[in-house]
Amino acid sequence: MSVRSDAHTIIRAALEACRPDTAVRRALEEYDIPCSGVYLVAIGKAAWQMASCAAEVLGPKLNSGVVITKYGHSMGPIPRCTIWEGGHPVPDENSFQGTQAAMELVKGLGQEDVVIFLVSGGGSSLFEKPLVSGEEIADITKVMLACGANIVEINTIRKRLSAVKGGRFAQLCAPAKVFAIVLSDILGDPLDMIASGPAYPDRSTCSQAKEIAAKYQLPLSFQARQLLEQETPKDLPNVETVITGSVRELCAAAAASCQSLGYKPFILTDCLCCEAREAGSFLASIVKSHQNTKESLAFLAGGETVVHLTGNGLGGRNQELALAAAPGIAGMKHTVIFSIGSDGTDGPTDAGGGLVDGETLEKLHDAGLSVHDVLTRNDAYHALEVVNGLLHTGPTGTNVNDVAVALIQRSCE
Amino acid sequence: MSVRSDAHTIIRAALEACRPDTAVRRALEEYDIPCSGVYLVAIGKAAWQMASCAAEVLGPKLNSGVVITKYGHSMGPIPRCTIWEGGHPVPDENSFQGTQAAMELVKGLGQEDVVIFLVSGGGSSLFEKPLVSGEEIADITKVMLACGANIVEINTIRKRLSAVKGGRFAQLCAPAKVFAIVLSDILGDPLDMIASGPAYPDRSTCSQAKEIAAKYQLPLSFQARQLLEQETPKDLPNVETVITGSVRELCAAAAASCQSLGYKPFILTDCLCCEAREAGSFLASIVKSHQNTKESLAFLAGGETVVHLTGNGLGGRNQELALAAAPGIAGMKHTVIFSIGSDGTDGPTDAGGGLVDGETLEKLHDAGLSVHDVLTRNDAYHALEVVNGLLHTGPTGTNVNDVAVALIQRSCE
Repeated sequence: MSVRSDAHTIIRAALEACRPDTAVRRALEEYDIPCSGVYLVAIGKAAWQMASCAAEVLGPKLNSGVVITKYGHSMGPIPRCTIWEGGHPVPDENSFQGTQAAMELVKGLGQEDVVIFLVSGGGSSLFEKPLVSGEEIADITKVMLACGANIVEINTIRKRLSAVKGGRFAQLCAPAKVFAIVLSDILGDPLDMIASGPAYPDRSTCSQAKEIAAKYQLPLSFQARQLLEQETPKDLPNVETVITGSVRELCAAAAASCQSLGYKPFILTDCLCCEAREAGSFLASIVKSHQNTKESLAFLAGGETVVHLTGNGLGGRNQELALAAAPGIAGMKHTVIFSIGSDGTDGPTDAGGGLVDGETLEKLHDAGLSVHDVLTRNDAYHALEVVNGLLHTGPTGTNVNDVAVALIQRSCE
Repeated sequence: MSVRSDAHTIIRAALEACRPDTAVRRALEEYDIPCSGVYLVAIGKAAWQMASCAAEVLGPKLNSGVVITKYGHSMGPIPRCTIWEGGHPVPDENSFQGTQAAMELVKGLGQEDVVIFLVSGGGSSLFEKPLVSGEEIADITKVMLACGANIVEINTIRKRLSAVKGGRFAQLCAPAKVFAIVLSDILGDPLDMIASGPAYPDRSTCSQAKEIAAKYQLPLSFQARQLLEQETPKDLPNVETVITGSVRELCAAAAASCQSLGYKPFILTDCLCCEAREAGSFLASIVKSHQNTKESLAFLAGGETVVHLTGNGLGGRNQELALAAAPGIAGMKHTVIFSIGSDGTDGPTDAGGGLVDGETLEKLHDAGLSVHDVLTRNDAYHALEVVNGLLHTGPTGTNVNDVAVALIQRSCE
């Protein structure tokens, strides 16, 4: 097969591995599920897909469940589950009611029971039961943002004003076991940050919370001041957590696909965070230095690059990365570099990423386009469109960052 | 030993391997030198060091030689050689006379004779014998630059107006053999570009030269027009060329030193050319993804990064690369990232490069410095100075680009 066709095979395999349902199925298959006493709580933007798949895998073992997702994200009923749709990114009364239902579901469970807890992005807003009024939380947040407080400081306060954040939901489930399957959308998988960590021990302390309140002179009610004195759980022995669908899995799935196609894969990084176009140039220089390889090679870099806008064209970070790699591999045969966003939508475009090969630069020149000019205008979409370099996958329902892959194909003969 | 001390060992080994004299010695030791009929021609800024070493290695086998270097670059007499100093970057009468002496030296040699031809940067200007007047060459060059002609076009014309460029010097040596030892200072080692390729077959053709003359309406004398009709050599069977001291050797020497210190080396690239700070970020993300390694690892990237100035501080591309890597490896133990220029002078500073480790970011914060601000001001030198992150090697007399190295040290115990 051609190297371009291999690229499409790798993209399909990588995206498939990170689909919320695939991720849940893989995690559940490796967990020893009891025959009864199994409960389900699913939160976040991918809650419906995750819960739907879990209900299918669990079958009659599932006792009952609560699913809380964003408005318009439920695709229909799920056996034995009640489904709630709530506000995102700002929680509303429906978020609170859904959360209340989940809290009631897990109240009074025994130590033989298991709560399958499915967490995806957006959970911070969708899974919330404030211990003070919603207005007070909004005021406190506003003051902290205005004073330049960082996200860690904001979370340290907010976790203490919530009945479920900062490990408290898992505490409510005890003595039942909690099996948390977390679809990570934050680089480095910080479990205390994803959905504000309802089933993860909280690292922040009461004394830190009080320091922060004093530092920013927060307008706290008597009730809120009392809550800052209550410690969050530091140890949750009833919880087992599996992180799935993270950028690490995206890279691993892409690497496995490369290997099955005959490429020797090398995962350079899964926490790439530099400027997209420079990452493309770096990746191209790696490929160029390996152009005399005897075996087929694949270099992979996962993460989330950034784009600093200098123009007002159309594009996305994956498209810029790919386009910027074109000059470095110009003239190389059987070589491609592509970059794809796991959500299938790269920037404000209908493409999920970009792909270039050794002929791309010449084709661009023939079309009167210079890579430098195009990048200055941030117009990678239109340039890649001309050279058949756009990748279209459609929205995938998940977001676990991006992966860039460089392939050098060598014939076995 | 500490990882910082390993870094200094690697830097010494890499720079030592690329010294002009080391490079010449290594190349000559692998060449079958006859016992008589050996002649020497050395051109370029490193001609004196290269010739001096060659004369020592050759000893009485050397018949006679001509050395042409830049004003002030001769360090004294060399046995059996005449030394010329000439103009650089603009050739002058002394360049022409030295070149004439070299042409006379190789005239009438037999097929048993050997010309050891030592080439280093600056050779284009120092080794020249124009076939038209110097004024006409200057005029033609000026017109071409004004019209936006590229370097390939300029060289296509100029090689035909020279008695030694574009392979013609090797043609003059025939039937004697030519053993060319080229110290490369251009990424990718384009032999027809280094010193304008006096001993390398010329790829350009007469018809291309005439097209270029027509395209830019060059003001050519009758003599020059005739010269454009004379083909340059396309095949030089009497020449054997060794490229030495290139960035590839710099990387290989650094990698060998890493290996001898117990690190498993991986040369990512030897043609890095992206923005220095982004290369640092990319390299740091590679290191971060490998922080759980059980074995000691070294990642190497050679090349020549660029810096786009946004401030008016003090620094260089190697210092910026290193500084930009500090946030990505913050907190990692036994880990360093450094970048060093092989010439020992990085930007307009007295440092040759920069080095950061897992504690650098905290030390910068303690000193009230933000990496982002420092880079925006292009003031890496002063920031690295505060955290003991400057590398001082002194000028090395060679320039084969830079190498950046990331080390993760793991104890064998």
